[in-house]
Order: sequence, then C-alpha cells, then structure tokens
Amino acid sequence: MFVPLVSNSHPDAHRYKDQFWLQLKRKVKPAVIAGPCSVESEQQILQIAHEVKHAGATMLRGGAFKPRTSPYDFCGLGEDGFKFLKRASEETGLPVVSEVMSAAQVELALPYVDVLQIGTRNMHNYELLKEVGKTDKVVLLKRGMSATVGELLQAAEYILLEGNDRVVLCERGIRTYETGTRNTLDLSCVPALQSKCDFPIIVDPSHGTGRSELIRSMSRASIACGADGIMLETHCDPKNSVSDAAQAISPAQLRQIILDINAIAETLAARDTDDEKNLVEAR
Amino acid sequence: MFVPLVSNSHPDAHRYKDQFWLQLKRKVKPAVIAGPCSVESEQQILQIAHEVKHAGATMLRGGAFKPRTSPYDFCGLGEDGFKFLKRASEETGLPVVSEVMSAAQVELALPYVDVLQIGTRNMHNYELLKEVGKTDKVVLLKRGMSATVGELLQAAEYILLEGNDRVVLCERGIRTYETGTRNTLDLSCVPALQSKCDFPIIVDPSHGTGRSELIRSMSRASIACGADGIMLETHCDPKNSVSDAAQAISPAQLRQIILDINAIAETLAARDTDDEKNLVEAR
Amino acid sequence: MFVPLVSNSHPDAHRYKDQFWLQLKRKVKPAVIAGPCSVESEQQILQIAHEVKHAGATMLRGGAFKPRTSPYDFCGLGEDGFKFLKRASEETGLPVVSEVMSAAQVELALPYVDVLQIGTRNMHNYELLKEVGKTDKVVLLKRGMSATVGELLQAAEYILLEGNDRVVLCERGIRTYETGTRNTLDLSCVPALQSKCDFPIIVDPSHGTGRSELIRSMSRASIACGADGIMLETHCDPKNSVSDAAQAISPAQLRQIILDINAIAETLAARDTDDEKNLVEAR
Amino acid sequence: MFVPLVSNSHPDAHRYKDQFWLQLKRKVKPAVIAGPCSVESEQQILQIAHEVKHAGATMLRGGAFKPRTSPYDFCGLGEDGFKFLKRASEETGLPVVSEVMSAAQVELALPYVDVLQIGTRNMHNYELLKEVGKTDKVVLLKRGMSATVGELLQAAEYILLEGNDRVVLCERGIRTYETGTRNTLDLSCVPALQSKCDFPIIVDPSHGTGRSELIRSMSRASIACGADGIMLETHCDPKNSVSDAAQAISPAQLRQIILDINAIAETLAARDTDDEKNLVEAR
Repeated sequence: MFVPLVSNSHPDAHRYKDQFWLQLKRKVKPAVIAGPCSVESEQQILQIAHEVKHAGATMLRGGAFKPRTSPYDFCGLGEDGFKFLKRASEETGLPVVSEVMSAAQVELALPYVDVLQIGTRNMHNYELLKEVGKTDKVVLLKRGMSATVGELLQAAEYILLEGNDRVVLCERGIRTYETGTRNTLDLSCVPALQSKCDFPIIVDPSHGTGRSELIRSMSRASIACGADGIMLETHCDPKNSVSDAAQAISPAQLRQIILDINAIAETLAARDTDDEKNLVEAR
Repeated sequence: MFVPLVSNSHPDAHRYKDQFWLQLKRKVKPAVIAGPCSVESEQQILQIAHEVKHAGATMLRGGAFKPRTSPYDFCGLGEDGFKFLKRASEETGLPVVSEVMSAAQVELALPYVDVLQIGTRNMHNYELLKEVGKTDKVVLLKRGMSATVGELLQAAEYILLEGNDRVVLCERGIRTYETGTRNTLDLSCVPALQSKCDFPIIVDPSHGTGRSELIRSMSRASIACGADGIMLETHCDPKNSVSDAAQAISPAQLRQIILDINAIAETLAARDTDDEKNLVEAR
Repeated sequence: MFVPLVSNSHPDAHRYKDQFWLQLKRKVKPAVIAGPCSVESEQQILQIAHEVKHAGATMLRGGAFKPRTSPYDFCGLGEDGFKFLKRASEETGLPVVSEVMSAAQVELALPYVDVLQIGTRNMHNYELLKEVGKTDKVVLLKRGMSATVGELLQAAEYILLEGNDRVVLCERGIRTYETGTRNTLDLSCVPALQSKCDFPIIVDPSHGTGRSELIRSMSRASIACGADGIMLETHCDPKNSVSDAAQAISPAQLRQIILDINAIAETLAARDTDDEKNLVEAR
Repeated sequence: MFVPLVSNSHPDAHRYKDQFWLQLKRKVKPAVIAGPCSVESEQQILQIAHEVKHAGATMLRGGAFKPRTSPYDFCGLGEDGFKFLKRASEETGLPVVSEVMSAAQVELALPYVDVLQIGTRNMHNYELLKEVGKTDKVVLLKRGMSATVGELLQAAEYILLEGNDRVVLCERGIRTYETGTRNTLDLSCVPALQSKCDFPIIVDPSHGTGRSELIRSMSRASIACGADGIMLETHCDPKNSVSDAAQAISPAQLRQIILDINAIAETLAARDTDDEKNLVEAR
C-alpha cells in the first residue's frame, strides 16, 4: 500500500537542535508567534519585538513582502524588511518567521529568517512549495482559504518530497457564506490533522476571525482543542497599523492571552496525565 | 433608534426558579446535555438516562420526532417517545429536551418535556417559532445549517415577540465545502453571539463534527471559548445506535469530557478573577 | 433494489386536464411565472396581473404570507392576499401561485390558489411537505438555500409519499461566499435534476441573483440549459416595491425576456430535431 | 477618484492583428477552445488537434505542466509538451493555450504558445501575474476556486499594471457545499464581469461541472448568458484520458455543442438587433 510521507513523518529531534523547533511541537507551553502584519520600519519592528518578547511570545512574525488582493495596497518593504527582522531577532533572541511568494524571494529571505511562511494564497502554488522544500528552513504552511484538510496534507507532501521534513501547518480560517467574521475558523481541523500527521499545528485567530475582540476567546479554544501554538497579529498601536488594523491586538492584550493559554495547557496536561494513570490502574 | 428585543433580554432569575435554567447560564460549571439521537425504546432511554447522570450530565436529550432527510429513515416513536423521556426524567431528576417540528407536536410535547428544541432545518420556520414563543417552556434554538449569526438572532426575536424570553442558542456546525467533517463547527460564533445578546449559548460538537473521535477536543474548545454548555449524543452502545452512529459517544467517554470541561471552566474563571483584580489594582 | 418515487414519477397527462400543468412541462414554449414579491393591495395585483399577461406570462405569482428574516419586515396581507390573487386570476385567466408556511395557511389557500409554493426556508420542513402532499394542488418546491440536489429530491419524495405526484422543482440560487450577488444561481442543477426525475424544473433568476440587471442574461441561460420555465419578480414600479426592490423588473423588461427565451427554445428545439434525424440516418 | 485599469481597458484592435484575439471578443460566433487536459504524447495531441479543428474549434488547449493536488499524479511532459503543441498548431493553424505555474515556465512557454493560462490555483499568485504581465502574450486568467468577482478583476489589474492589456477571464466553477458536481458553475459572473470590464469572458463547463453529461447543457447556457466562448476538455478516447476522464468529451460531442452554441449566438444576435431597432423607432 502507498503511504504518503506526511503520515509517518517524525522530524528527528536529535538532528534539529533549534530550540524553537522543539518548542513548536508543544509539550506544555504553547508556541506564540506574534508581531505586526507588515514590517513598517526598522524602529517599528524593533519596538514591537521587545514588547512581544516581554509579553511572553516565543517567536516574531512580520511581513516583508505582502500579498495584497489589490496591487495598489502597501506591498511591504521587501529585502529591507527581512534585514530589520534579523536585527530584531538578534536584539531579542526571538526566531523570525516571514512570508515568501516566489523562488526569488526565498533566496532573498534565506540569510535573514528562521521560518519561511507560505501564505494562504500560495498553498496550491506547487512550484513554490518545491522551492522551500529544497531549503533547510522550517516551513510554516498556511491552509488555503478554501482548501480541505486532505489538500493541506498533500501540499505538505510537496515540501517533504524535496527533502525538507520540518513543516508546521497553520489553520487561518476558511471562506464560507458567513459575513460576520472575516473567515470561519475551522478548529476541528486541528484534531483532524493530528490524527493523520505528526507536524506541529498552529492556529491564526487574527486572520481566522478578522475581529480583534474575538481573538482572546478563539486563542483559548485553539489551545484547548490541542493546537501546538497560536499566531497573533500584534501592533504597538493597533488602530494605526498600515494593514489589517481591525484584527491587530496590543502587547498588553497579548500578555493576557498568553497567561490564558498557558493555564489551559497546564490544566489539560494534568487531565491527560490523570487519564493515563486511570488507564494503568484499570489494567 | 430601533432596538431588537434580543439585545437587551435579561431573563429574570427571580421569575424563573427552575434550577436547570439557572445552570444553563453558566457560572462555573458548564451545562451538559447528553442522551441518544433517538428514543429507541423505554428501556433504552431509562438506561442511558441513568448512565449520563452518573457521568455528570445535567440534562437529558432524546428525539421523539426525528426530522430525516429521507422519508424512509427512522422517524422516531412519536408521543411514546415523549412519555419515555418523562419517565426517565422522573427517575433521574434530569430535565428533558426534545425536538418539535410543528404546532401539533408542540402541543403533544408540553406535558412531557422541559425544553423544546427547534432543529437546524426549522430555524427559518417562522410559524413554528411563533408557536413555541407562546409557551412557557425554555426553547433551545439551533442555528440553521447555513444561517448567519444575524439570522439566528432574528429567529430568536420571533420567539421573544410572542412573550417567551427563555431562549438558548445552539451552534451545531455550518455547511461548507469541507467534506472531512459532517459540518464545520463555527466556534467563533460563541463570542460573536455573546457580544450581541445575553442568552445562554450551547455547542453541539456531535453534529458539528459528525466524528466521535473529534468530539472530546471540540468540547474542550467550546467551553474554552466561552460557551455555557455542550450537547453530546451519547449512547450505551454507540456503534448500534439506530441513527447517527458515527457521532455517538459512550457514557465513559462523556465522563472524561465532563472532567475536562469542568477543569477548563475553573481555570478560566480563576484567570478572569485575576484580570479583574489587576484592573482594580491598576486604578 | 429500493426505487424512490421521484425516479419514476410521470404524472398522468390524461388525469390532469389543467392546461397550465401541461405547459409547465415544456414542449417548446417555456412557462413564465411573473408577478410581485408581495401582494400589496387589490388594485396593485390586478394591474400587474394584466400587465404580465400582456407581456406574455403564463402564470401569476404573488405573496400573501411572506417569510421574513426579521419579524419587523412586511409579512403580507394574509388571507386577503389570496382573495385578491383569485380575483386577478379570474380577470386574466392566469393560474396563480402563492407561498404557504404552515398547515393552517395551506387550508386558507386551497380555495384561492392553483399552485402551492414551498419556499426555500421550508424545504426541510417535512411536516409542511406532508400537508401539501395531502392536497390535489400542484406544488412548487423551491430548493433550500444550502440544500444539495439529492436533498431536494428527497424533499419531493415526502410530497409524493402522501399521494400528490404533481411537483415542480425550482432552483433559486444557493448560498456561497460570493457577495457580489444575493445568491449563486446553480444552473447545472437543471440537467442534473433532469437526469434523475421527470418533474418540471423552473429557475428563479430574481432571487438567484438579487440584481435586476443580471436577470435577462440569466433567464436566457436558464432556458438554454433546459429549464421548463422561469419565475420572475415583476412590479409595475420596481423601485417602489414594498419588498425585494433590487431584484424586480418591469413588465416591459419582462416582455423582452419572454421574446428572448421563446427564441432560444425554438432554436434548441430545432437543434434537437436535427440531432434525432442524424441519429436515424446514421442507423 | 481612483479608476482601476480594468474598468476602462479597451485593447486596441488595430494594435493586435492576431485573428484569434479578435475572435475571442465575440461578435457572433463564439470562441471554442478545445483539447485534452494533458498533452500525453506527440501523436495524441496531433490527432486531437485535427479532430477538434474538424469539429469547429477555434483554439487548441493542452497541459504541458499540470498542477496536481497530489505530487504523485501525472504532472505533464514539461517542455516537450509545449513543443508538441506548437507542432499541432502549425499543422492545423489553431492558436495554442497552455498553463504556466512559475516564472521559469513562462520563459519556457514563450516560443511555443499563443496564450498563457493562469490556472485557478494561481489566481492569487501575484508574482506570477506580474511575470505574464511583462510578456506580449494573451493571458487567460482563470477565476480562483473561491475567488469573488472583485478579486478576479483585481488579479487582472496586476497583469495590466505591467503593461499587458490582453487578458481573457475564465469562469471555471467555484467551491461550494454541493457534492453532486465537481464545482458549482457561477454563470451569473459573466454578466456581472461584463458590467465592470471589457475583457473577453470564457466559460469552462468541463471543470465547472466535472461531469461530461452536463457539459452540453452548460455550454448552451454559457453562450446564452453572454460569454464570448467556451473551453472544453476534449479527448479522442475520453474514458482513457490520463487525467480528468470524467469530464472529457469526444470530438463528435464537441461538434454537436458547437452547432448548438452557434445557433444560440445567431438567435440572440438577431434578438439584440430587434431590440435596437425598436429603441430607434421608439424615439
């Protein structure tokens, strides 16, 4: 029988010493990837990097190249964005994740970022998946806006086939008829994915809801259903974010959410331990 | 400005002495409505009623009249089903919820059930909403399979306008392109609804996922995002359930889920208390 | 093997003498059901009835009871609406179709209307389907706003099982993520339904698009893909329609559309005849 | 006020002498793009090219690089595929359209193909849109599987901004909850797009339905609602097509469809002429 690589991929912990990779596959403390939608300036990214670190984030995000539905929207600072992210990473010790949209951008990003993000619009861009599959970077693969769970896993297979087995999957909301939220966050995909692969699973409630007032509740739910971490658009001045202002939260709000999810993770770890004990005693 | 009734409906706790209504609007311990898809026989419903009570459920569910997509599927025991539910309620002390689909069925149900359920196929059945609005029973209104949050609230308004202000809203999954789950559970509607009304909000992960192995994770997530309770199809012998076998869980699995959600509810209540203290100190 | 009634239902032309029923199952000239969303007054419905007849319509529509998402919207004139429709029918000779939403409304409608319409919100209301199945009226069954083709046929089965075999199916657009149109008109369901049953198939481009400027094109397409007729919201003064103003057309526009679809129907009938000739010659 | 390029783009007929480009913007006779899903061998593409030309097609399609959801499916012959298409074009005089998925593939395709196709998975791949915008080839841009009409136009804007104003838009079905067809063909987007831009609009009923038995009806409907042409997967031996066998039609079926749509186009052209005459007389 044919067995796809995704189904038995257990990335070798001994091979990969990066602390952040080990953290992504949650033990107790969930990974928290925070930062602005776009890198707007060196000063902006340095300030927010320090603030999200202080709030408890474990990784920094920020867009250097932004995929925009309209070509007239702000498209990012390009290579400079990567450089500013690198500087922020060096100052804070936080690993850095940023999106790439073409082979040329992959090459530009390599010296600067720790995790290459494939955005929702490019999940089906198989040529790009092959490109990041040839690198030794961790790849954060976002679910296509109308992709099924099966298609997300098949997209990951394109990366694995090129030799890169460090893939992180990210649920970020799917497109439905509901107009009250920007997308519909499909949290049931978290346990559904975990039943089929061993990759870390991250949830992005910022894009998943598009409404900052719903993000705390959905972050709690993400960790409760078993996600290994969350990804949150965070801005020092949310209302004045150059892009996606409606879904950005402040570092103070981030802090509250991190306390929430750590508490939930501990509670559920204790519950799972109880369950195992009971199973042993029942034998 | 016009203000719909849903936006400022605070059902009077003094007026309604029923313990189960007070429980529905969660303080710490979430409501748990459990029981089979269909009442199959008196013996079956009595047995499961005792088992779900023992597992910690706070309310019993069971279908006497079943809406079936095909007229050739099992359509329920009818009035006998209500009688068996009543007997199970008397033996266990659990209040009973059961679905009605017409004015005639409402009348039949009144002597036997505590909560009238309006199913997903009838959320837009305004004549039926008016009928249950004329009763003094609690109404559990399920979201239509492709209804928006706004439409769910407008459906509730039909009930309130007839004078009945005890409405419980229930998210049970919406219809999307995803075929890996029976429906897509839209948990972000929980905080979205809570921002607009004061009704208790229940989540039904059984219909929401249609897959028993995902129900525990999604029950945890439901309570974590703020739902007041969950509704779970529970069967003494899940594989031999007459209807919806793929999504039924056993009383033992129910027990584990109840321990999970109680732990999460306590953890988050403590977190919310911390937050309030910090706010007071910060003044 | 189990064979549902829908798959071999060929209503007996000898049994049903009503001219309009024979017309619904198109030979060459498509059926055209036209009239306002709501009956607003006797004078209004009489005037529009004469105008749509003059334009070439073969049946009159008009709502006496209107299902409204919000209980505060205009809900129709009730029984008076049926009476005014009857009068308009007597004056023009056009048969009349109007929606019913409960058993009580079915009884009220019987003396006045020729075709009982089940609206999109009630396609899953099985108790109502049984009620109209017990009458001897033609039933126009609209597809649920997120119903599959298979579910529409199973809903029809509920009517047939009660003994009424004169069902007309109506595509009226389904709910999707697209916001540019009110619904997404799924015309491929027309040949898909015709491959599985022998009922007349009607398309409603008014609700299907919600935009009056798209209705002419979609009416042409409906007949081109094989529908037996179309249903169009027509108002003497579209902009001042009490309900659904954005999708109403004028009698003059209706006239153009009827000329279009008659021309397409003749052209395709000639094409089909050519095909058959070629098949015979090829033997 | 800001005016996007798409809204007033009237590609200069004098500048572009290619007969096929003029045909794409339909006068009376619709464009017909036919050919196999994948180029399987030189012999296969030469044979089908002659057959579709004989049937009346005006352009040849065939995939050299195939985007496949699973990396294990047949991914095309690559550059050889382009060469075989070129040879087929030279033998038959039919212009050739083929898909490209990366900047590298665009370069490979330039010497061989007349029209560069951007597939549904890459409509949001803005880097690729910019690449084809820099060429002087006609670009056939397929709608993303869950893209809105507005997003399709914004994707076209990316191409126009690079200086290439010869864009053809293609509706190929959108993703919905309906499982009876592969996608849901959204024909109302044809008049909706025509109200906002002047690009030729093509419909692909093969992918739009995924069922060969529905293609004839939906081809008729496509032209009836105003599309400038259709794109049909055609195979000499449909059942043995290497990919997408369920939706391929034979050259004989193609012939019937072309006769159908030409007849509809003539009929509607006559209707439109009548309308204009009446308008002039009415003055």
